[in-house]
Amino acid sequence: MKASIITIGDEILIGQIVDTNSAYIAKSLDKIGIATHEMVSISDEKDHILQTLYGLQNKVDVVIITGGLGPTKDDITKKTFCDYFDDVLVENDAVLVHVKDMIERIFNRPLTQLNKDQALVPSKCKVLFNAVGTAPGMLMEQDKTVFISLPGVPYEMKYLMENEVIPYLVNKFKRPFIVHQTIMTYGRGESLLAEQIESWETNLPTFIKLAYLPSPGRVRLRLTARGNDELKLKEAIQKEIEKLDDLIGDCIVGYDETESIEVVVGKKLKEFGQSIATAESCTGGKIAQQLTSVAGASAYFKGAIVAYETKMKEQLLQVNHKTITDFSVVSAEVASEMAVNCKELMQSDFAIATTGNAGPLQGDSKAKIGTVFIAIATPSKVFVEEFDFGQPREKVIDRAVSKALEMLYKEISKN
Amino acid sequence: MKASIITIGDEILIGQIVDTNSAYIAKSLDKIGIATHEMVSISDEKDHILQTLYGLQNKVDVVIITGGLGPTKDDITKKTFCDYFDDVLVENDAVLVHVKDMIERIFNRPLTQLNKDQALVPSKCKVLFNAVGTAPGMLMEQDKTVFISLPGVPYEMKYLMENEVIPYLVNKFKRPFIVHQTIMTYGRGESLLAEQIESWETNLPTFIKLAYLPSPGRVRLRLTARGNDELKLKEAIQKEIEKLDDLIGDCIVGYDETESIEVVVGKKLKEFGQSIATAESCTGGKIAQQLTSVAGASAYFKGAIVAYETKMKEQLLQVNHKTITDFSVVSAEVASEMAVNCKELMQSDFAIATTGNAGPLQGDSKAKIGTVFIAIATPSKVFVEEFDFGQPREKVIDRAVSKALEMLYKEISKN
Repeated sequence: MKASIITIGDEILIGQIVDTNSAYIAKSLDKIGIATHEMVSISDEKDHILQTLYGLQNKVDVVIITGGLGPTKDDITKKTFCDYFDDVLVENDAVLVHVKDMIERIFNRPLTQLNKDQALVPSKCKVLFNAVGTAPGMLMEQDKTVFISLPGVPYEMKYLMENEVIPYLVNKFKRPFIVHQTIMTYGRGESLLAEQIESWETNLPTFIKLAYLPSPGRVRLRLTARGNDELKLKEAIQKEIEKLDDLIGDCIVGYDETESIEVVVGKKLKEFGQSIATAESCTGGKIAQQLTSVAGASAYFKGAIVAYETKMKEQLLQVNHKTITDFSVVSAEVASEMAVNCKELMQSDFAIATTGNAGPLQGDSKAKIGTVFIAIATPSKVFVEEFDFGQPREKVIDRAVSKALEMLYKEISKN
Repeated sequence: MKASIITIGDEILIGQIVDTNSAYIAKSLDKIGIATHEMVSISDEKDHILQTLYGLQNKVDVVIITGGLGPTKDDITKKTFCDYFDDVLVENDAVLVHVKDMIERIFNRPLTQLNKDQALVPSKCKVLFNAVGTAPGMLMEQDKTVFISLPGVPYEMKYLMENEVIPYLVNKFKRPFIVHQTIMTYGRGESLLAEQIESWETNLPTFIKLAYLPSPGRVRLRLTARGNDELKLKEAIQKEIEKLDDLIGDCIVGYDETESIEVVVGKKLKEFGQSIATAESCTGGKIAQQLTSVAGASAYFKGAIVAYETKMKEQLLQVNHKTITDFSVVSAEVASEMAVNCKELMQSDFAIATTGNAGPLQGDSKAKIGTVFIAIATPSKVFVEEFDFGQPREKVIDRAVSKALEMLYKEISKN
């Protein structure tokens, strides 16, 4: 079972927006045992779209196209999709009623002609009803390939994948099983890790594949097993993980592929009934934002104080003026006071504090650009680490956020 | 001048990570007049890589490949790249010295064999020196096509694009000019906008193309002109923008393609010497995070209080207990007090406050999931708007952040 994903839109090819739809679609397909063979992004040009579709006919089982279904002139996917199947566009009553209802409710005005045109669909297609937007999804089968066209707006695409596309594919195809297991490690480089597990890697069964996914400060290992017996695949993977644990157990922090560090931290805090707050300077609220991106975060996240301006560290977080003048605003001492005072103010069990210079300018401290102090206050103590996260600004902020959450995770895990 | 971008890595095809490299590369190429014809993501499989390379030979001028250059067994790009050109791998002295230096400095240990292997490169390639990582970039010319292989780690890829690839391409090719101009509009739907500018759109010169980029609450219009005379292109675009301003000037907020709302807001604040602070509940620090993602934000961003827990709204932001019990924590009254008190506490000129229910659970208020109140405190007043941002959680948070920044922008612009 193979799929291809096509994204249509000039905005992607000039780099104005990043395509996040393909990753979502690939992940959804992967879960039901359909492997994505290739992802392609092409322009809003009829010939380019047609040529890409011809190239995939009977080569893959499923083609999913996103984008180009809007009401404006530059959106040509629907017309081209229709041409490809030698079909004609007809008005779909159910879609028209829905579009009318949405436009009247949201914009409080009558339909324009362009709105009405959204109800046109190829006469032979199966309409995928888009309850959250005005552009319907469309599905056509031709020979051995199913072609599906979805709107490019991410939440509309997600709605249709979940409610229409996946149920349809599950019903239509007999699929193999794909089992993934990610092992999250941190604090050890990719090369060293690879050498430590080399003989284990060489002896993996042929139906299990290993991949390394390094990012600053951590490496995820991903095992993928393919076959027809799901239970057998899972058992085989479990066996390999046990062997791996003997080899590098000291740097493994978790196992769930879908779990980011903020989700893992949240689970641990929930499990122990503990809470967290943050006092942020150079990370500008990003640690709080990541913690609160998790549904249900209100069970353990108290709040954050982003004391960006130096003065605010004194006023909002009650850092001693003398500490700042003696040690500078980017120092272990300031980070430590920020964490302790934040924990106090928020009545939380843990607190994270960051102070540093993300660049590109020098700012209120003499600290080198890239220097960040991260402090963790726990129920019984506070500790600080100093880092040099280099440049540029974006990387300094991201590494500081990721490192802070890892330090917290390690600490909570000692419970 | 056409380019293709290839991303290699199973982690992309199973949707584990989103490919952000292609957008960056496309944008860099676009700036020097090279149009990206297609982006492709494929797996770490030799045949798939070779087949993709063969398909592009002499079809495009430049092929840029990222990913698969790590030291581990699943990284096969270098070997395959070498095979494609019928070349052999040889040790490069300069790269070896650099790898040794990096490993010793960062990990404080001697080289492993895998580290040493990073210094192997095809004998005929031009080495692109990677000062920020251990995997070098490689460049090969064959017939009419230049093939370039870069590491997949985003900041290493960016370093090489900026310092090696772009200077090389600028020097090698005579390129046409591409001029883009984005017009940021807000508060009007795509269809209505399209109808209002229909006759203008129809009469655009043939060398200018229009695209609509809608996102919740706003539509960006992008004009792209191609040709050999840069000045002429710019003048033609300017002329079209003036016409457009007569038609829909009331909903245009800015013109710079690279400027996101947080950059535009920052510029305005700097221009007027004013400052901003935020008091966030449902947005969890994301407004602060976006404001501080801009280099130089310390000139106008004071700080933020993320009062996630209801109690924190009283303790940290001094919202009246009675306001919360009388009107509920998700209310115009609470948002308004949050904004006013935040402005006071932070001694800022403006303050943004958010309170709402992002879901998926009900939380501390009876407010419907998706309900968000946004308050803006200005030097002279405070005002609040209520929104229904629907579902899911991610969309509610993103729309609230974007709407809050737009409300602020509109207000600052009245200066």
